[in-house]
Amino acid sequence: MGAMPDKPAYPPAPELDVERWYNTTAPLSLAALRGRIVVVHAFQMLCPGCVSHAIPQARRLHALLKDSGIVVLGLHTVFEHHAAMTPVALEAFLHEYRIEFPVGIDRPSGDNGMPRTMATYGMRGTPTTLVIDTEGRLVRHSFGAEDDLALGLLLGTLAGRA
Amino acid sequence: MGAMPDKPAYPPAPELDVERWYNTTAPLSLAALRGRIVVVHAFQMLCPGCVSHAIPQARRLHALLKDSGIVVLGLHTVFEHHAAMTPVALEAFLHEYRIEFPVGIDRPSGDNGMPRTMATYGMRGTPTTLVIDTEGRLVRHSFGAEDDLALGLLLGTLAGRA
Amino acid sequence: MGAMPDKPAYPPAPELDVERWYNTTAPLSLAALRGRIVVVHAFQMLCPGCVSHAIPQARRLHALLKDSGIVVLGLHTVFEHHAAMTPVALEAFLHEYRIEFPVGIDRPSGDNGMPRTMATYGMRGTPTTLVIDTEGRLVRHSFGAEDDLALGLLLGTLAGRA
Amino acid sequence: MGAMPDKPAYPPAPELDVERWYNTTAPLSLAALRGRIVVVHAFQMLCPGCVSHAIPQARRLHALLKDSGIVVLGLHTVFEHHAAMTPVALEAFLHEYRIEFPVGIDRPSGDNGMPRTMATYGMRGTPTTLVIDTEGRLVRHSFGAEDDLALGLLLGTLAGRA
Repeated sequence: MGAMPDKPAYPPAPELDVERWYNTTAPLSLAALRGRIVVVHAFQMLCPGCVSHAIPQARRLHALLKDSGIVVLGLHTVFEHHAAMTPVALEAFLHEYRIEFPVGIDRPSGDNGMPRTMATYGMRGTPTTLVIDTEGRLVRHSFGAEDDLALGLLLGTLAGRA
Repeated sequence: MGAMPDKPAYPPAPELDVERWYNTTAPLSLAALRGRIVVVHAFQMLCPGCVSHAIPQARRLHALLKDSGIVVLGLHTVFEHHAAMTPVALEAFLHEYRIEFPVGIDRPSGDNGMPRTMATYGMRGTPTTLVIDTEGRLVRHSFGAEDDLALGLLLGTLAGRA
Repeated sequence: MGAMPDKPAYPPAPELDVERWYNTTAPLSLAALRGRIVVVHAFQMLCPGCVSHAIPQARRLHALLKDSGIVVLGLHTVFEHHAAMTPVALEAFLHEYRIEFPVGIDRPSGDNGMPRTMATYGMRGTPTTLVIDTEGRLVRHSFGAEDDLALGLLLGTLAGRA
Repeated sequence: MGAMPDKPAYPPAPELDVERWYNTTAPLSLAALRGRIVVVHAFQMLCPGCVSHAIPQARRLHALLKDSGIVVLGLHTVFEHHAAMTPVALEAFLHEYRIEFPVGIDRPSGDNGMPRTMATYGMRGTPTTLVIDTEGRLVRHSFGAEDDLALGLLLGTLAGRA
């Protein structure tokens, strides 16, 4: 009888498929960020739960972590109201909400449905939080509000082990 | 020596200049609402203070007051990011934020500056709250967050006197 | 067939039975306050819902109303943990929570049960809010958290009619 | 030239001096907890900042961590209003606020001043948070509100390294 693993085996995190990046001088990719812990906040600018909870949490996380090895990214996963949540609208949103971390627009599928990264990950909606460890594994994928303490504990644990 | 007035004299509230209404079967006007107390919430859909405080307050006020004689209106006073806060974007916003009270789009001035009602009233920004009494007088014009207790007291006092 | 009344008939508010007052130079009574609107916040200093919601609301109400004709009172209705919620403990609580409005200790029944005013009013627990109009009638008796907007509207309406 | 240390050197955490414990079958000590991360929330039951922020945070932390190796403790450091914050009052407080983690009463100094553990640690007031690592070192000592994300990150980092 084989030994039981002492922790779950996490799958590799699929690459992000981003049409356009904001708040960064060059395009980003999970491949290029290998070796760092990455937190991805998938959101829509007209999603109330994103605006009231996930975006403020991402801003605070970015402010806390910007001098650490942990990277905070936003991903604009527009799956509804496509005519409203355009790039020019997102740009105004990033400005008004003082978002300084890099944000990518998830590449549209072309049929007004789920954009490509959202579909690849099988996200259930917005907000969704992804946490990727230094080896590129997806250690957390959650839909809805993330608790600050629990998210801090997870990220700290990954950082402490790294 | 003349008697002192027991309350301030309020100016007449200028008419709203609205390009298009949502959540109402017919256009509204202050003239047609004479005899009722009217609360106007001027907002922009990408204004953080509007989204976090003024819009939720307006929704709660509408829910509390919809069977009373007091009318709650929204006014979308776009004075920045015109390309982002379009009518189609506002429509998505009203849907996502479950706004059921009538909302009008303040008529654009044509030069990407302040829209017409906003200019007429001399509003300083968003959110702005206007309270108009049953005789069409502007009894409150305030910029920024309104306190729930204070707003309730004012509206109750006007209703009690009416 | 008789005419329908246009508003409910409110019962007279029973007198408060207070053992000791704080934050006032002389004992208070509803009889002596006749002609004024009175809000009574019944609380216990170790009741979490009182401390997190009702007491802060009472403080804000007092700050808003202290120059109006409306009176805000606290009533310490100890019906449990009698050995903990003593007068000396209440005094420390009033100091730490910066409570400046008059607070009375509801007179104990002598059997460690409900104190006398609480029993007379048939209060269900704490926090309880009582609103008494200028004619001494009990127009509101509610158990639990009071909404700021709704309480403001009620008090304003009573003040506007007075 | 000597090597620079890669992290600060933390002092050993002085032992707690507790008169009486609640919510534990046997007295606790930092010595006996060596090998575990310990979070100590020093509070007073009549301190508004403790009741509104630190106690709820400690409760959430305990709920999150009770199956991990991290221990959450409360320490009732009464330095004012001694006649109000008695053991019987604390017991009622623990019951009303549903506090299930172990809480110790910091041993009084006998002169109505700071209790002994508070004085040994040089605490500035309440709430104060102490974090002690698996080797018994004091890695954090902070006065006032602790941010959830930052506290989670610190605890996770310590746990990840352990």
